[in-house]
Amino acid sequence: MNRTQLRHQDVLDEHAHSWSPDEARTRFRSGVSGPTAGCAAGHTQANLISVPADWAYEMLLFCQRNPKPCPVLDVTDAGSWTTVLAPGADLRTDLPRYRVWEHGELVEEPTDVLAHWRDDLVSFLIGCSFTFEWALAEAGVPLRHLEQGRNVSMYVTNRQCRPAGRLHGPMVVSMRPVPPEHLAAAIRESSLLPAVHGSPVHCGAPDVLGIEDLTRPDFGDPVDAGPDDIPVFWACGVTPQAAVMASRPPFAITHAPGQMFITDARDEQYRVA
Amino acid sequence: MNRTQLRHQDVLDEHAHSWSPDEARTRFRSGVSGPTAGCAAGHTQANLISVPADWAYEMLLFCQRNPKPCPVLDVTDAGSWTTVLAPGADLRTDLPRYRVWEHGELVEEPTDVLAHWRDDLVSFLIGCSFTFEWALAEAGVPLRHLEQGRNVSMYVTNRQCRPAGRLHGPMVVSMRPVPPEHLAAAIRESSLLPAVHGSPVHCGAPDVLGIEDLTRPDFGDPVDAGPDDIPVFWACGVTPQAAVMASRPPFAITHAPGQMFITDARDEQYRVA
Repeated sequence: MNRTQLRHQDVLDEHAHSWSPDEARTRFRSGVSGPTAGCAAGHTQANLISVPADWAYEMLLFCQRNPKPCPVLDVTDAGSWTTVLAPGADLRTDLPRYRVWEHGELVEEPTDVLAHWRDDLVSFLIGCSFTFEWALAEAGVPLRHLEQGRNVSMYVTNRQCRPAGRLHGPMVVSMRPVPPEHLAAAIRESSLLPAVHGSPVHCGAPDVLGIEDLTRPDFGDPVDAGPDDIPVFWACGVTPQAAVMASRPPFAITHAPGQMFITDARDEQYRVA
Repeated sequence: MNRTQLRHQDVLDEHAHSWSPDEARTRFRSGVSGPTAGCAAGHTQANLISVPADWAYEMLLFCQRNPKPCPVLDVTDAGSWTTVLAPGADLRTDLPRYRVWEHGELVEEPTDVLAHWRDDLVSFLIGCSFTFEWALAEAGVPLRHLEQGRNVSMYVTNRQCRPAGRLHGPMVVSMRPVPPEHLAAAIRESSLLPAVHGSPVHCGAPDVLGIEDLTRPDFGDPVDAGPDDIPVFWACGVTPQAAVMASRPPFAITHAPGQMFITDARDEQYRVA
């Protein structure tokens, strides 16, 4: 087991679900990294994308025009590393792992970005489907990736987002294999949480989304499906990273896929009814 | 009956509910004006605010930070008067009545803004509670303002929006008197349409919102309540106008309160579940 795998185990230990958001962030700040699915039960997780202020309007407009993959939970003022979603947290250190991008190329994957921070960075916190997994679990929907101790599978699709100025790119989806008898509950429960991607964008044949091989995700881990499981695809907050790759802004910082920012917000507050 | 009242009657005639969106816009383009509550059944209505590009990021951020009053349905490119919500429509002519603002002061209320248009205007179309009135009516909730042939009552509240850069101001609400036996349906049905303000922000005593006298609305008409009716307050898309008054950008164009842009979109497509 290499160091990265060991660290995955660190995060996905049997106690991770009962961590408080502050406990989780404290661990990540100390250098622990790994996927956050299953951490800090009932607390809203968020994707991060930070871009120079010169790109902030286009990023916000891109999110507004593509609300399924990019539901915005908070936007910081330029240079600020704090958010109303978790007072006291530091966006530069409190995620498990980051990605640093230059002209659309991934240049580094550090566990903090103190050395990369800039005064002109505007940070977007975007809803994450890990948030609705608690609602799915409570409704009895099995979550294969958690059962298998893996990150969720994510795929770049053939669906183009609606562009905004210089920003364009394909929609990314996360996939969960769902047994047919649990499909209605999975759709119903996620639909009631539109701020964290809401209802699925597709169920069934992956080729409709241009996905050729479910066992080879573009991000995250492959997840074993049960024999009758139906693949269910939700729009994913990694979509802004795909836009960064396609649109090549001079600089950006994001979370590493599946390694989210854990907020103090409660999933319930994003529930519609 | 003066000319304005006569025109109100034009809009609120017995056939207005069955107009197609295009029919409605064609009438408004020809100069007919008046409140659009009850027009073009089942089609999504929108508030308009157009600001110079220099203010667009702050307006979009203001909307993101205040999603209950300011749910964004579309944002145009600078200078464009078209929207994906109604291909072929002209945002400069197709609303019943506009307001033109200079440095936070209302300077004119024309029925088109062809003479005021600027190449740097970015237009925001924001969800309107008239949209969920169809769902309320179908659920049996009486709509007093429609029964009385009036515009809805709107009030400036004592709740400050979360500011965004130079933009700040109070939340505006619309109020509908609801009989107690219909309160649950009114809350349930509106909750399922978060893109058009969603659930109420308050029910009952108006002084909680700093509203002293329900018979003297800040915008729209006073509406007579039944003896047991409970006043129900929803966040209102006139809120960006209140922000314009408070924040005084050099120039802005908005709709006149209650005189909305009627889109081709179907209310159903904004329904969560």
